[in-house]
Amino acid sequence: MRSAADLVDRLTLVVPDFPEPGVLFRDLTPTLADAEALRTITDELVAAFAGGFDLVAGIEARGFLLGAAAAYAAGTGVVAVRKAGKLPPQTLIEHYELEYGVAALEIRADQLAPGTRVLVLDDVLATGGTVEATCALLERTGAVVAGVGVVLELADLGGRARLEGRRVHAIRLV
Amino acid sequence: MRSAADLVDRLTLVVPDFPEPGVLFRDLTPTLADAEALRTITDELVAAFAGGFDLVAGIEARGFLLGAAAAYAAGTGVVAVRKAGKLPPQTLIEHYELEYGVAALEIRADQLAPGTRVLVLDDVLATGGTVEATCALLERTGAVVAGVGVVLELADLGGRARLEGRRVHAIRLV
Repeated sequence: MRSAADLVDRLTLVVPDFPEPGVLFRDLTPTLADAEALRTITDELVAAFAGGFDLVAGIEARGFLLGAAAAYAAGTGVVAVRKAGKLPPQTLIEHYELEYGVAALEIRADQLAPGTRVLVLDDVLATGGTVEATCALLERTGAVVAGVGVVLELADLGGRARLEGRRVHAIRLV
Repeated sequence: MRSAADLVDRLTLVVPDFPEPGVLFRDLTPTLADAEALRTITDELVAAFAGGFDLVAGIEARGFLLGAAAAYAAGTGVVAVRKAGKLPPQTLIEHYELEYGVAALEIRADQLAPGTRVLVLDDVLATGGTVEATCALLERTGAVVAGVGVVLELADLGGRARLEGRRVHAIRLV
């Protein structure tokens, strides 16, 4: 049986200068389009935090793919952490900087009971800004961040240091 | 046991005048944040097309949630049908009109072997423009659309007629 990391290496597309010159883009869509890889990656992310979470948060848009698969696998729901302007009021909003630009994320606070243990999932951990903003949003509702799971961690960009004190599981460090 | 339709009725948020005046927005994010609803909805969509598909297509962004959960449940991969500009080249692109505006969707053709039977999933079937564009994209690659599954179908907007000849399963008609 191939490991999740092996499947990620074999299937992920590495594209230079996308979406801007100087950025090395890693496209996980071919990886998630593979049945074995989707199952193996999802199972590893769930197993890494098994029993420790009540809900999964998926970060728009690619984190929705991992978040929903993991929620189904773990028998929880999935809360959508959305880009600003997509959710009807009332929302909580958090602004942040990302690898190439600025952005904002929103959630609906009424989807989270205080004390809910939430596993945060996204495809790639780069500078950590997106994940950090997501954790801040969740904690503003009274939820507890159970951990952070990603498929790829870009080690040079310092995301892990920014999430110091949090439990982080990356399937593949590059 | 509550049916998927019952859970959708109970949990879905109906918001008038969002994102524009005159639009009645149905927010399924609270529904998918509920463990029982996520499982029941996903299982019904998979069961409706059981054995008839090899791959699931999820339409960005809310269709990613359903697409990935269904792909995991069915043991297939999930292909991401993305808004224009998100995927690295080379892509196929399809322009279309939607309920309030115009848009374009893209996929990477190299994720689909000819003859692959693809189940198209999205949250809401409204005018059918988004789903029709998705089916057109998939068929341009040589794939076969096995069917279309949605959580909510807005009957007054004519999406079903636009998809005539296709197998469509909606959990709830409103």
